[in-house]
Amino acid sequence: MRAAIAGASGYAGGELLRLLLGHPEFEIGALTAASSAGSRLGAHQPHLPQLADRVLDDTTSATLAGHDVVFLALPHGHSAAVAASLGEETLVVDCGADHRLADPAAWQEFYGGEHAGTWPYGLPELPGQREVLRRATRIAVPGCYPTSVLLALSPAFAAGLAGHDVVVVAASGTSGAGRSLKPHLLGSEVMGSAGAYAVGGAHRHTPEMEQGLSAVAGAPVRVSFTPTLAPMSRGILATCSAPAAPGVTKESLRTAYEVALKSEPFVKLLPEGVWPATAMTYGANTAALQVTLDERAGRVVAVIAIDNLTKGTAGGAVQSVNIALGLPEELGLPLTGVAP
Amino acid sequence: MRAAIAGASGYAGGELLRLLLGHPEFEIGALTAASSAGSRLGAHQPHLPQLADRVLDDTTSATLAGHDVVFLALPHGHSAAVAASLGEETLVVDCGADHRLADPAAWQEFYGGEHAGTWPYGLPELPGQREVLRRATRIAVPGCYPTSVLLALSPAFAAGLAGHDVVVVAASGTSGAGRSLKPHLLGSEVMGSAGAYAVGGAHRHTPEMEQGLSAVAGAPVRVSFTPTLAPMSRGILATCSAPAAPGVTKESLRTAYEVALKSEPFVKLLPEGVWPATAMTYGANTAALQVTLDERAGRVVAVIAIDNLTKGTAGGAVQSVNIALGLPEELGLPLTGVAP
Amino acid sequence: MRAAIAGASGYAGGELLRLLLGHPEFEIGALTAASSAGSRLGAHQPHLPQLADRVLDDTTSATLAGHDVVFLALPHGHSAAVAASLGEETLVVDCGADHRLADPAAWQEFYGGEHAGTWPYGLPELPGQREVLRRATRIAVPGCYPTSVLLALSPAFAAGLAGHDVVVVAASGTSGAGRSLKPHLLGSEVMGSAGAYAVGGAHRHTPEMEQGLSAVAGAPVRVSFTPTLAPMSRGILATCSAPAAPGVTKESLRTAYEVALKSEPFVKLLPEGVWPATAMTYGANTAALQVTLDERAGRVVAVIAIDNLTKGTAGGAVQSVNIALGLPEELGLPLTGVAP
Amino acid sequence: MRAAIAGASGYAGGELLRLLLGHPEFEIGALTAASSAGSRLGAHQPHLPQLADRVLDDTTSATLAGHDVVFLALPHGHSAAVAASLGEETLVVDCGADHRLADPAAWQEFYGGEHAGTWPYGLPELPGQREVLRRATRIAVPGCYPTSVLLALSPAFAAGLAGHDVVVVAASGTSGAGRSLKPHLLGSEVMGSAGAYAVGGAHRHTPEMEQGLSAVAGAPVRVSFTPTLAPMSRGILATCSAPAAPGVTKESLRTAYEVALKSEPFVKLLPEGVWPATAMTYGANTAALQVTLDERAGRVVAVIAIDNLTKGTAGGAVQSVNIALGLPEELGLPLTGVAP
Repeated sequence: MRAAIAGASGYAGGELLRLLLGHPEFEIGALTAASSAGSRLGAHQPHLPQLADRVLDDTTSATLAGHDVVFLALPHGHSAAVAASLGEETLVVDCGADHRLADPAAWQEFYGGEHAGTWPYGLPELPGQREVLRRATRIAVPGCYPTSVLLALSPAFAAGLAGHDVVVVAASGTSGAGRSLKPHLLGSEVMGSAGAYAVGGAHRHTPEMEQGLSAVAGAPVRVSFTPTLAPMSRGILATCSAPAAPGVTKESLRTAYEVALKSEPFVKLLPEGVWPATAMTYGANTAALQVTLDERAGRVVAVIAIDNLTKGTAGGAVQSVNIALGLPEELGLPLTGVAP
Repeated sequence: MRAAIAGASGYAGGELLRLLLGHPEFEIGALTAASSAGSRLGAHQPHLPQLADRVLDDTTSATLAGHDVVFLALPHGHSAAVAASLGEETLVVDCGADHRLADPAAWQEFYGGEHAGTWPYGLPELPGQREVLRRATRIAVPGCYPTSVLLALSPAFAAGLAGHDVVVVAASGTSGAGRSLKPHLLGSEVMGSAGAYAVGGAHRHTPEMEQGLSAVAGAPVRVSFTPTLAPMSRGILATCSAPAAPGVTKESLRTAYEVALKSEPFVKLLPEGVWPATAMTYGANTAALQVTLDERAGRVVAVIAIDNLTKGTAGGAVQSVNIALGLPEELGLPLTGVAP
Repeated sequence: MRAAIAGASGYAGGELLRLLLGHPEFEIGALTAASSAGSRLGAHQPHLPQLADRVLDDTTSATLAGHDVVFLALPHGHSAAVAASLGEETLVVDCGADHRLADPAAWQEFYGGEHAGTWPYGLPELPGQREVLRRATRIAVPGCYPTSVLLALSPAFAAGLAGHDVVVVAASGTSGAGRSLKPHLLGSEVMGSAGAYAVGGAHRHTPEMEQGLSAVAGAPVRVSFTPTLAPMSRGILATCSAPAAPGVTKESLRTAYEVALKSEPFVKLLPEGVWPATAMTYGANTAALQVTLDERAGRVVAVIAIDNLTKGTAGGAVQSVNIALGLPEELGLPLTGVAP
Repeated sequence: MRAAIAGASGYAGGELLRLLLGHPEFEIGALTAASSAGSRLGAHQPHLPQLADRVLDDTTSATLAGHDVVFLALPHGHSAAVAASLGEETLVVDCGADHRLADPAAWQEFYGGEHAGTWPYGLPELPGQREVLRRATRIAVPGCYPTSVLLALSPAFAAGLAGHDVVVVAASGTSGAGRSLKPHLLGSEVMGSAGAYAVGGAHRHTPEMEQGLSAVAGAPVRVSFTPTLAPMSRGILATCSAPAAPGVTKESLRTAYEVALKSEPFVKLLPEGVWPATAMTYGANTAALQVTLDERAGRVVAVIAIDNLTKGTAGGAVQSVNIALGLPEELGLPLTGVAP
């Protein structure tokens, strides 16, 4: 099968290429870009020597036509128009935000502009979601932060063990901000420093978390979300807590997670007493998860580590594509991280 | 005045020396250590060339006698015995945990062993605390995490704007763990990785936070605290939230913080829309603080950055010492950080 | 084929496992350790979830017997004895230094103790070396620094374009020092800091570089080698220079490298004007190489980036094993790095 | 005395301000910028809370007039015009390159455009240079790399112990590249990665090194210089070597350095066997230096660590200003680094 990537010069595009190069069922088709069109891929992705001499095309209907799968790694607001030109015979995978939020008001509040509608949500680990993805021809890849939070708390909400007042504080590597030339993303600024941003409910991933958790809980869930930047290129470490439902014990909590995750290929519940670090998942499509009950504070606390570019973006995308195409879900996706 | 430092080969000891070298009222007296006794200070603190050839003594009553101030940077459980040999004419400053917790049961649960009682708590920014510290002859330096959390949330609790269900997630640089030779503190393990530890109410600083916030609130406050290690040597970034009291607005919240902090020399409320990063306070005795109301989630969210070794340990200690000795509170303490 | 790894709890062992898990011709046999014997592999290599529950054995003849390939990732001085118990039907691959140096005097000077003799040297890119490795039953994996230097300068020496006064300064990630608990390897010490060590000809890899370059040059080559530690977990960036032979031009130099490297699967000569960075090779078995003539100073300057654990150790080992076993040389070895 | 800073929003400007805030003889006058004029300093230098509300002026003759000292931290090519408007009653200190090179041809080759002539070179440690700087009204601050190399090798050349074929490989923190928005300076690119640039004699600091070393040696010295970027914000670690003169021994070499440096306040020759790391000098105006003889390779090898922004730029500038103004040379300059 041939895959095209729109936005191949960015970090998400580079990670998609890294994974597709290791995937036995794909060959790499068109690679497109915006301002980088006309340049060699090697100038942007020097870690992919096999593709160094491929020249980036403009992102147009013509260049993307004729592929089995088209991955869109574009700034938000651009996917709908590109997808409109591609028929249902093409699987279109949007790594951007355009087709995630079901609520037009939330879209309007957090992104602005016209609401593009929703596509099947590419988080197979959500209850019932694999069925939705099977034979899908459009996939909305979840945001990196929502991926982490939904994986961390879904088992608790699905089992009725957690209440609706969720607090999430997540540390992300800087690649989550993309390759944008902003002063606060310079190495000199971020090395040796951790900082917060978009505090107080301002981050665009907040309604996506609430949408997902509310669906699992069967009731509205509110999330207080604070994202932070940590001095690392990759990785998300999300600390997620919610009030414990009456009667929850450490044992019942762990059992609920063990049951929920026992067949999940990519979500790893760590041995008791071991807490996640992002190095466990560097470059892998895995999530490292741990949960406990804070009896003192009466809260369920789940901590999860993922690679924001792999499970949080490109790996999650390929996983959903595998399902949509009827391939084995794990095909071509790394279980091993790169450490130390 | 002559100052001795017990534990001069460690990170807290080194930071005390760095500050005392720049303090106009102190000369450096005895420097002691445990297993490093007999070695040159330069072997442990090569960033302090003025003291490179000083030889470390054993930590004994004799070596510590005859100083105006004795700083104890020792593992917990060792301070009481050392202090007992020093009369009230000596100001003894415990950078360890031994004399922070008023509740023997909390001490027993989190530290174990005999409870050593409390000393005046060295966080001058707490309401009324400067009075307590004036003419103190014993000072318990707060933990680094509690310093950050108490500074971040005290204004809200003092003004009655926050409820008791506090959630704190803090990222710390690795120097907070001291110079202990543990595999998870190796550079190869921590660079590029963020990880959680002591989750679920297990961290020893939890009861200290609750003690301090409860005193300010005038009612019991529970804290769900999750510490994480970020890939940096120094700095704490603490994200602290609590349910907003009824009727709180963004404006009333900011006003409360402005009023509370307007005379504080070291706690800087950032301009609206600017969020703290630890680089703002690197090597400085300052705290960079911001607060907002998450109206969606109904929580007050305060984020604070400090240098765990400066304001979080050695700088906070010197600040309290200045007060106790009747010196200007800011004397010898850096307001400027080192950045980028 | 079944592969055993002695020293599976260390960094080299972990990288071998990461690669073998992705290699289609190997299954993982015995995993052994010294002080970690009896513990779960997951406690040491949490990035390898597939093997988390494997228990480490003691490193004995019995546990290593019955494998097709045995990788030894042991401290130097231990390999000969282990190998002696394994017959020629087993391919034994020494990732340590024991069987690299042909000169007993050099061994004695730099390592001390008895000289164990040499095994076929596992750097296939050296002239004629693939022939040596074909059907080898013992392989000495080169040191990580010599791998980088020999790859960088061999084309120049083979073409007679460089003189014998070589100067190498290399920056290594801290994983090159292994998982040893030494103060200078703590994250707090290495983050934000670059430092030199073993300066002035003292590093053990120096005679190995000289041995390899002298063989290529057909004349004695001396190397002034300075290793440094950079604040990163992985990667070597080696800057290597030698006096330019009379008449060398930038063009003749580049042509010599193009010719020498045109069929090499893993050594990538970068486009003119692009200089290597270790991120290009993170987790990959590749080397990113560039060369130029410093006409001002009259020196050939080659800069190379490799991943010290992949091409510099485990990947280089697997590459040589592929050759020795008659498998395709590139089988199971990543060409793509993980970036950013 | 009043000091103005042109270029106050950049890294060099921020470091000048940090030092001047701690200097007892200076008050901060005009602060100017180019594109940032009109904004608050706090938006650019949040680590300097005392000056957060100062507004940046345009860089004009009018704003810079009426100061005792004017520091120029401007892109090269801009200093001469600004200085022309300031009379000899004002001490003008150029942190840029415009007035360092005596040879117009070298200026033309490496910078292009008109040669602005030379000013007294602000490296007091060079032989006789303190005399030159006393009562100077114009000072050319050395480049950061030349500062490190000249400090490292001058004692050897002054004593006739080293030959002219110098090889320097230096690792710099990213702040050396300033706050320019270039993709390769993004945190995502530099964290975890070391890379080379301007290899083969192309770096502009090369002729400055040669000029300085040749003057000390009394004969032409050629330098093969390779700069690299290390994943850290600050610091230069320079490894400098030159052929050993006949008859040099380790002892004679060390003695020469001890004699040369025994009265230097800021250049610290480390104890034998200890090698420099940049953390020793973080934020300090010091240089940490070590030297040895590589008997195997016949080269003198000196390794030096400095903070590129402190001793390498702003601290070196203030040190020269102290001399020019007749103040104690060490006034207001930190001897202590910030570590870990």
